[in-house]
Amino acid sequence: MPVDVIQSVKLDDEKNALILLDQTLLPNEKVFLELTKVEGIWDAIYELKVRGAPAIGIAAAYGVYLGTKMSKAENYDQLYEDFKKVKDYFATSRPTAVNLFWALDRMEARFKKEAGKTAVEVKQALKEEADLIRAEDEKVCEAIGRYALSLLKPGMGLLTHCNAGTIATAKYGTALAPIYLGQQQGYNFKVYADETRPLLQGARLTAWELQEAGVDVTLICDNMASIVMKEGKIQAVLVGCDRVAANGDAANKIGTSGVAILAKHYNIPFYVCAPLSTVDLNCNTGADIHIELRPGEEITKKWYEKPMAPEGVKTYNPAFDVTDNELITAIITENGIAYPPYTESLPKMFKKE
Amino acid sequence: MPVDVIQSVKLDDEKNALILLDQTLLPNEKVFLELTKVEGIWDAIYELKVRGAPAIGIAAAYGVYLGTKMSKAENYDQLYEDFKKVKDYFATSRPTAVNLFWALDRMEARFKKEAGKTAVEVKQALKEEADLIRAEDEKVCEAIGRYALSLLKPGMGLLTHCNAGTIATAKYGTALAPIYLGQQQGYNFKVYADETRPLLQGARLTAWELQEAGVDVTLICDNMASIVMKEGKIQAVLVGCDRVAANGDAANKIGTSGVAILAKHYNIPFYVCAPLSTVDLNCNTGADIHIELRPGEEITKKWYEKPMAPEGVKTYNPAFDVTDNELITAIITENGIAYPPYTESLPKMFKKE
Repeated sequence: MPVDVIQSVKLDDEKNALILLDQTLLPNEKVFLELTKVEGIWDAIYELKVRGAPAIGIAAAYGVYLGTKMSKAENYDQLYEDFKKVKDYFATSRPTAVNLFWALDRMEARFKKEAGKTAVEVKQALKEEADLIRAEDEKVCEAIGRYALSLLKPGMGLLTHCNAGTIATAKYGTALAPIYLGQQQGYNFKVYADETRPLLQGARLTAWELQEAGVDVTLICDNMASIVMKEGKIQAVLVGCDRVAANGDAANKIGTSGVAILAKHYNIPFYVCAPLSTVDLNCNTGADIHIELRPGEEITKKWYEKPMAPEGVKTYNPAFDVTDNELITAIITENGIAYPPYTESLPKMFKKE
Repeated sequence: MPVDVIQSVKLDDEKNALILLDQTLLPNEKVFLELTKVEGIWDAIYELKVRGAPAIGIAAAYGVYLGTKMSKAENYDQLYEDFKKVKDYFATSRPTAVNLFWALDRMEARFKKEAGKTAVEVKQALKEEADLIRAEDEKVCEAIGRYALSLLKPGMGLLTHCNAGTIATAKYGTALAPIYLGQQQGYNFKVYADETRPLLQGARLTAWELQEAGVDVTLICDNMASIVMKEGKIQAVLVGCDRVAANGDAANKIGTSGVAILAKHYNIPFYVCAPLSTVDLNCNTGADIHIELRPGEEITKKWYEKPMAPEGVKTYNPAFDVTDNELITAIITENGIAYPPYTESLPKMFKKE
């Protein structure tokens, strides 16, 4: 069964345009932007029209290609000057996005690898490199999806938290990849999406993209995860992650650790879908992972017509939490499935090819 | 230390008025309505300006008193006719509110007890009965607060879910009663209030009333309960309840069971504050408690400027969940603290005097 999985970032080389799904308009409008100027692409990154680490990296890689393509430079050195200007410009769009710098540096490395080539040849190489970044991410997601799907059975009820989906990546997403692959194979999963307060990524993004792909999705508030598990509606939990420590402790969107504790209580497997780029073997445990605190207005005012909490009330708004390794049934990477003890199984994932 | 605990429902007999805190304007405006007409009191109940089972009962009792007080009837039988009209009128204000009917029936029983008395005497008796309903509820809450406080220590971090506070009762509330009594004695609790999606009673009401009373309160999203427990910020959880079964299973606002599972995981005591009026020994277990399902728009649209979920998405919106007795450290009633096994301890609470 063909499933229309949305690609949120893609190149239209003939039109010299980056085609970008404007995520700030979701879930109310589905608008693909056709961005032909570097300023427009920069704005899109800055204003979070594109979000999700892989998607940002891909957008920046294509942005730097399109910006360089427009250069009138006639030789390698002149072209490099123009390239550098574009690259440095994109580096200012989201200064804390690690994947942005990773993608830009990779584009520069490729540029340097083409030393002595003509401007036309270098431009072609940059396109190839950006395409490669996109294709590799798609491959990683697909592999995670395949491994995760091997743990699931048709008809299962699945719960997910936040958005680790196609619109955050090149395609398929991480935690949602097995759902899309299963959908293609007629698995008929019943997916429950936590709305994921305070930023509502589950309601605005996950519910939206699964519904677009025809997946059977039900939106719940975060505090309803317990009752849906108790009622037997959930056979597995799938979440993405931002960083995995060497011992398997996994940082992900706030609330993930709570879902893991509920899953353990109800004897439901809890799977973390983690591209190896998020596995940090130099980080010993979750205690070493810094948790970002965000403004309280996200809880008290954001999205609302009127403030929903008394003026001046204290808030606590951590953006992430760490799920202890003992709560995680398996960590699913593009190179296979790691089981406890993770200090032994995770390093093996890197050696596999 | 005197603490200004808000009384959300009170009589001003000289002005022939019911003074009512308009809860629909919280947390943005603190408005006390001065209602002198039965129609105005009926509207206030119908439009949820007063909410919380005990508070509704008290409002209706005073309403039926004020309505009868205005009667020009000169003898008992004539007055009873007018009383019945007012009583039947109030019975239509919230036809599913059990406490409303309980209070109205109690007022009628008192009326009948005064058979043969003059109109003036009967009116005075009705006022006494309404005052008694209010005073008894205050006493129940205070007793629960005293027992609960005996389990707590100064400086503790406490977590609560939904609103079981002063504005839902005559005074003090149930789960919040020990917090107010502790505040009066300088306990300096640090209270964390779950915002309680989708209706945000924690953000709109609990955070508001605790802040008004000068309690140190921090508002969090429901999915942050896990991280605040993990970080050692919570030493006890206190919640109210809607119904307790004979085996101790307790139905309360959606999300309560999840908080109980987290508390167990982190080894934190979980206390249910339950007036004996909510303990139903004829209900064997939580499985016999019917869970109300509410409209999905409460999740997708309510409070928001724009819909926060895709049009037409499926939702699941249970208003309550049942916390299994094995997750409950103790059930605190106005007659004492019941510990497991609850099938033995709960009946004893009723025998105590």
